[in-house]
Amino acid sequence: MDFETERIAKLVKETDAQTIVLQFPEGLKRYGPPLALQMERDLGIAVMLSGNPCYGACDLDVTSRADLLFHFGHAPIPRIQVPTAHFIEVRNDTDVIPITQKALSVVEGHHIGLLTTVQHIHKLEEIKRELESQGYRCDIGCGDDRIQYPGQILGCNFSAARAVNVDEYLYIGSGTFHALGVGIATGKRVIVADPFLDRIIIPDTETIIRQRHGFIAKARDARSFGVLIGTKIGQRRSALARELIAEARSHDYDAFAIRVNEVTPWVLYQFPADAYVNTACPRIAIDDASTFRAPMLTPIEFEIVLDKRSLSDYVFDEF
Amino acid sequence: MDFETERIAKLVKETDAQTIVLQFPEGLKRYGPPLALQMERDLGIAVMLSGNPCYGACDLDVTSRADLLFHFGHAPIPRIQVPTAHFIEVRNDTDVIPITQKALSVVEGHHIGLLTTVQHIHKLEEIKRELESQGYRCDIGCGDDRIQYPGQILGCNFSAARAVNVDEYLYIGSGTFHALGVGIATGKRVIVADPFLDRIIIPDTETIIRQRHGFIAKARDARSFGVLIGTKIGQRRSALARELIAEARSHDYDAFAIRVNEVTPWVLYQFPADAYVNTACPRIAIDDASTFRAPMLTPIEFEIVLDKRSLSDYVFDEF
Repeated sequence: MDFETERIAKLVKETDAQTIVLQFPEGLKRYGPPLALQMERDLGIAVMLSGNPCYGACDLDVTSRADLLFHFGHAPIPRIQVPTAHFIEVRNDTDVIPITQKALSVVEGHHIGLLTTVQHIHKLEEIKRELESQGYRCDIGCGDDRIQYPGQILGCNFSAARAVNVDEYLYIGSGTFHALGVGIATGKRVIVADPFLDRIIIPDTETIIRQRHGFIAKARDARSFGVLIGTKIGQRRSALARELIAEARSHDYDAFAIRVNEVTPWVLYQFPADAYVNTACPRIAIDDASTFRAPMLTPIEFEIVLDKRSLSDYVFDEF
Repeated sequence: MDFETERIAKLVKETDAQTIVLQFPEGLKRYGPPLALQMERDLGIAVMLSGNPCYGACDLDVTSRADLLFHFGHAPIPRIQVPTAHFIEVRNDTDVIPITQKALSVVEGHHIGLLTTVQHIHKLEEIKRELESQGYRCDIGCGDDRIQYPGQILGCNFSAARAVNVDEYLYIGSGTFHALGVGIATGKRVIVADPFLDRIIIPDTETIIRQRHGFIAKARDARSFGVLIGTKIGQRRSALARELIAEARSHDYDAFAIRVNEVTPWVLYQFPADAYVNTACPRIAIDDASTFRAPMLTPIEFEIVLDKRSLSDYVFDEF
C-alpha cells in the first residue's frame, strides 16, 4: 500500500508545517496509528489522526486546525477546493487483466464502458487495450466537475458512465456499492470484476428499485417530513432543502429542516416525522434504509411523492 | 416548559435574522419539530433543527451558518463566547420544597452546600431559606469562569461545590450523573433530592472510584495509548494532549493523537491501542466505560499511570 510518505515529508518541509492531520476512510483507518507514530518520529512534528467517520472526499475533515490535512484513499473532487488539503490516493497494484479476461465470459454487448474508482484508475488504459485486442469496442468517459479522472465514479456521481453511449459497463473493483449506482443511474447492465476476490458479479439493480418504489408508496401516506441538510463540506444542499420544504408546504405537508453532520437512525428517533428526505449523501437513504424508523427518500424520490416527477422518470440522486 | 418564544421572536426582529438554528440536548429534542414548524409559520424565516448530538453548552453547534443559534436547556458557559448564540435555559417550575423537606430526614451534617443544574437554579435561595428556618447552616458557592450561576454545577465542573467548605451537599435534580461527579470531586457525601420522582438517593461514589482504580491498574500494562482530542467548541484541550503524548513517549510508550467530534466505541475499534486517554468530555471515560474495547482514562488518571501523581491524589477531571 503506497501512503506516499516521501511526498508528505516534502510537503511538510516546503510549507514548514508544524501540525498535520491524517484522514482515512473507514477501510484504511487501521493503518493510521503506525503511520502517525512513524511520521512523528521521522518528521519531528505533531501528527493527529482524524477520528471522525469518513466516507468520501466529500467528507474532508476541515474542522482540523492543522497546517496540512492529508486525506487518504480518495481522489480530490475538483469542485471542492481546500488549500491545506492534499490527497494520497493509495493506488492499488493488483493485476486486473486476469479478472478482465474472466469478465469477458459474461459480457453480452460489443461496446463496453469502463469504470472504476481511484484505486484502479491507472489500470483503465491497459484494460481498454486488452478488450480492444479481443475485438470489443471500449470507451472511458469523462465525468463532470466532481470527477478527477476519466472512467472514475463515486458512490454519488456516475457522470463518467453517462458520458459514454455503450451497450454495458465493466466495473473494476470490489463490492456492489458503486456498480449498483451505475445500474440505477444508467439503466444498463453492469458487470463487476473484482480483482481481489477473483469474482464476477452482476448486481441486482431491480430489487433495489422495487424497494425504492415501496418507500415512495409508503411516503405518499406521510403528513410530516423531516428534511435533512448535511454539513459535510461536499454534501451541503441547503438551497435544495429549502425548495423542497417550500414545495412540501404548498402541498399542505408539515416539513421541517434538520442540519446534521452524521445521519444516523438516532437523529430520526429524536425528531419524529412520518418520512424523511435526505439532501446530504444520496447513498444513505438507499444503503442504510433498513436502519431507519420511517422511509427516507432522496430529493428525486420526494419529487415523485409531490407529483413533480413521474415514477417512470425515476433516477439516481447524484451530486 | 418555557421555550421563550417571545424572546426569540424579539431577537429575530432586532437582528433581522433570516435563518436560525434551534439546538436541543437529547432529552428535549422531541420538542424541536413542533417548535420549528410554529416559528417558521409565525416569524416567516427559515428555521433549522440541529440534528447533531448535544450533551452540554460546551457542545454549541457552531457549524451552522445561520444568522442566530438558539441553544436550549443549558446555561451559557461564560468563558465560551459565540456572538450569534443565545441560551434558552428552559427553567422548571416544579415545587422543590417538599423534596427538600424529605431530604432532611437523611441529612447527617449541620452545614449544607446547595447545588443544582440550571433547570432549578432559580429555586436555590428558596431552599436555602427553608433549610435555615429548620436550623441548618447553608451555603451556595460561586463557580469559576465556566459557571454562570451560584450553586450551578455541570457534569464536568464542580467548582461551585468546592467553593464552599460544608459537611455535605444537597443536590436538587434527577439522576445521579451530576451528584456522582460532586462526590468524586469533593470526597464528600451528596444527597440527591429528585423533585420529579419524589425520591432521595445517596449515590455510590465508592464503586465508581474502585472501577477507576481497576482501569488505571489495567492501563499500567499498556504499551500503546491513543490520546483523544475533542473538537467541540468547549471540549478542546490540544495543548494538554500534546503534553501527555510527550510524557508518554518519554516513558517509552507508543502514543498517538486522535482528533474527533463524537467519541464512540467505533473510533477506538478503528484505531487500536492498549488504552486511551480522553482529553475531551471527562464524563465519557467514566459513564461510557463499559462500551469501550480497552481502558479509557481521564488525563488525571493517565498522570497516575505515568507516576506523576499518586493514586491517593485521585481527583475528578474537570473542565
